[in-house]
Amino acid sequence: MELILASQSPRRHEVMAWMGIPCGTEVCTEPESVPEGLSCEETVMHLAKQKATFALKRNPDACIIGADTVVDLDGEIIGKPKSAEDAVLTLRRMQGRSHVVYTGIAVLKNGYEDVRTVKTHVTFRPMTEREIRWYVSTGDPLDKAGSYGVQGLGCVFVDSVEGNYFNVIGLPAPILYEMLLKAGAVTEDRT
Amino acid sequence: MELILASQSPRRHEVMAWMGIPCGTEVCTEPESVPEGLSCEETVMHLAKQKATFALKRNPDACIIGADTVVDLDGEIIGKPKSAEDAVLTLRRMQGRSHVVYTGIAVLKNGYEDVRTVKTHVTFRPMTEREIRWYVSTGDPLDKAGSYGVQGLGCVFVDSVEGNYFNVIGLPAPILYEMLLKAGAVTEDRT
Repeated sequence: MELILASQSPRRHEVMAWMGIPCGTEVCTEPESVPEGLSCEETVMHLAKQKATFALKRNPDACIIGADTVVDLDGEIIGKPKSAEDAVLTLRRMQGRSHVVYTGIAVLKNGYEDVRTVKTHVTFRPMTEREIRWYVSTGDPLDKAGSYGVQGLGCVFVDSVEGNYFNVIGLPAPILYEMLLKAGAVTEDRT
Repeated sequence: MELILASQSPRRHEVMAWMGIPCGTEVCTEPESVPEGLSCEETVMHLAKQKATFALKRNPDACIIGADTVVDLDGEIIGKPKSAEDAVLTLRRMQGRSHVVYTGIAVLKNGYEDVRTVKTHVTFRPMTEREIRWYVSTGDPLDKAGSYGVQGLGCVFVDSVEGNYFNVIGLPAPILYEMLLKAGAVTEDRT
């Protein structure tokens, strides 16, 4: 059965490549809509399922993976920055302390649905204003939830992780693997 | 000042690339020698320094980075597997439980030395015999300390990490960055 990742994130596709699981791409072109009052967990699960549902409509015979990642800082959902200045403000708040990364994962196929959320704690080391300004000037934070990426220039600021690391990249490999096993989309020896 | 990584590990060079810090390569051709009775921490620091010292002799005007990584399982040091069967035995012991990864880091330049060790806890999810056999058959574990790699097919088995993730790849980016700042080999805005 064809497997499709409903995301164009090169980081998520890289994780799929690490997993050794080939997949196609189908990107949701509908605007993201989240009902009022959802928690972080509910928000990422809702959006992961929304993306996967869109892809399933266009590929009804495939198994679809949807994913959505946000950062939770003091209960506030931090998505992608709106501007370079917004990224500076976010990084000033995040430096020298911990935040939580949530990824929602949806595995959908015709008549089948498995939606979960994975939570990882990340601690930043203290950053100077010069480091923040430099990091934002590279452009690296601008397309990423929480205004940073771990697999790039941001790696020097990520002091420690508690939980699943791949979740921070945007696709928690071991949990997704278990979901794909359960859905019958992969086998333990990839046969 | 030229920066040289005394390692040919493509994974360590990838972390340097993420950090945005260009470096050359000088690989130690001397056999590794470890005095009797050293702990895990002492062993990786000793080997990191040995590799860096070799590279410094050949590049006396450069700043050298040496690194060595081992896995500690119940107090036993687990290096690279000797064979596929050895990798199977190691993975059978490691599945479904935690181990500790130690990386020793040495930053050396003429008249200057900074050597540290970084410790990270890694927990594997349970693996079936079929998963272990398949993973070893791919060849991926055969050149890696502890018989696994996180940035590849092994990613689905790594349930959680506590501590610095990059340490598990073999080069703890934030600690190395701080050591390079202290040595004057990089600046906060890479100028």
